[in-house]
Amino acid sequence: MNAEEKYFNNITNRERAIFEGAITMGALFHQFVGTPVNIDSVESLEKAIEAAMSVQPCVFRVEVVIDRKKLEEISNEFDYVSLTGEMLDVKVTTVCSDKQALIRLKFVSELNYPLMYVEDVD
Amino acid sequence: MNAEEKYFNNITNRERAIFEGAITMGALFHQFVGTPVNIDSVESLEKAIEAAMSVQPCVFRVEVVIDRKKLEEISNEFDYVSLTGEMLDVKVTTVCSDKQALIRLKFVSELNYPLMYVEDVD
Amino acid sequence: MNAEEKYFNNITNRERAIFEGAITMGALFHQFVGTPVNIDSVESLEKAIEAAMSVQPCVFRVEVVIDRKKLEEISNEFDYVSLTGEMLDVKVTTVCSDKQALIRLKFVSELNYPLMYVEDVD
Amino acid sequence: MNAEEKYFNNITNRERAIFEGAITMGALFHQFVGTPVNIDSVESLEKAIEAAMSVQPCVFRVEVVIDRKKLEEISNEFDYVSLTGEMLDVKVTTVCSDKQALIRLKFVSELNYPLMYVEDVD
Repeated sequence: MNAEEKYFNNITNRERAIFEGAITMGALFHQFVGTPVNIDSVESLEKAIEAAMSVQPCVFRVEVVIDRKKLEEISNEFDYVSLTGEMLDVKVTTVCSDKQALIRLKFVSELNYPLMYVEDVD
Repeated sequence: MNAEEKYFNNITNRERAIFEGAITMGALFHQFVGTPVNIDSVESLEKAIEAAMSVQPCVFRVEVVIDRKKLEEISNEFDYVSLTGEMLDVKVTTVCSDKQALIRLKFVSELNYPLMYVEDVD
Repeated sequence: MNAEEKYFNNITNRERAIFEGAITMGALFHQFVGTPVNIDSVESLEKAIEAAMSVQPCVFRVEVVIDRKKLEEISNEFDYVSLTGEMLDVKVTTVCSDKQALIRLKFVSELNYPLMYVEDVD
Repeated sequence: MNAEEKYFNNITNRERAIFEGAITMGALFHQFVGTPVNIDSVESLEKAIEAAMSVQPCVFRVEVVIDRKKLEEISNEFDYVSLTGEMLDVKVTTVCSDKQALIRLKFVSELNYPLMYVEDVD
């Protein structure tokens, strides 16, 4: 067992896949919400968020989509907005040994809330 | 089942306690790292982080300790530093129905890394 | 002249008061936007933001008011929101030698934008 | 005079160039410090920071260099670090009518501090 593993021997691989995906999602939201964004910069921001969050432990893939419609609706003369959770649709796939989890962030209308949940898990 | 619960019926209460604690820990780290802090403002920052992160789903208690020794060692004429993960010792306790989890963030010397892990779980 | 001053000998005291206040305002906005907040945690957050940002160079006073009305209007079952620029009214007072500046952040309806501007300067 | 201009008629164009550059620098620092980064993701992060901060008022160009040497020195098994101010070298060029300012952030060894200052202004 390496130095890291001893901190995780009280949970299953499935639980660690969930754990690491959840950390990454919470981190992503609170790192990048507030970032200035408009239609010209949005793709570069999506790619950078994906690259940044993919370096975290157990993270296999991160897919970020920022809602273009919200960017096109901007109705001020400054031509950009601050990124909000409502604009984000994110999938974080984690792998821990033989187990995989897909954590999702998306705005859920019926909850009026950008919800993070486990969309799929082995 | 309420609107929220249907998003979580694929995981156990124990797993949700872990999930929500992990989100809160990732969020806390990435929201507050970078905040200017010194010996005079440190207690107010600890209390505000605890209060802010306690509003998240399933979070029962948040305890934040920022390393005073690091603040006293500041060796520049500006008399403050930016908060880093290395300065943080955090405990997040979550409750999901009959299950409880304690998520911990602390700097682990042998890993040279501010590690997030599940310290205790039912 | 100390080590710091030589970096600022190309601008006036009035300009440095404006410069440092503007840094602090930009920093404040992007550090704290996204923080979870509700009616119970709002005062502690205001005080911590004031204490944190007051440690920056030349900053004499920071006053933060978060719009309670927006917090009371929350219409989701999670009972908190992420702090946005629209909810903030902030005054940063800077002093540089004999000059003082008051930098303001407030939501300006006619611009539909949380504007930062110099409200008063010697 | 448009709606925005009336908020800035108490300062000169030179002062506004300084003001907007300083906001952008403070914003950049506190938005992105804490972001996970390693040698593979660093270029994408630099480009996204440049694109994001270029949308702010009066900002003409943003150039971001993250210190590769610091990334190569990483000595933990997780193979990434959190971005710190010490790793950043940033130039923000602002234009306000006939005036231009260059705001710089770089780590100054003699101050042991990541200093923001006005490197050049008309």
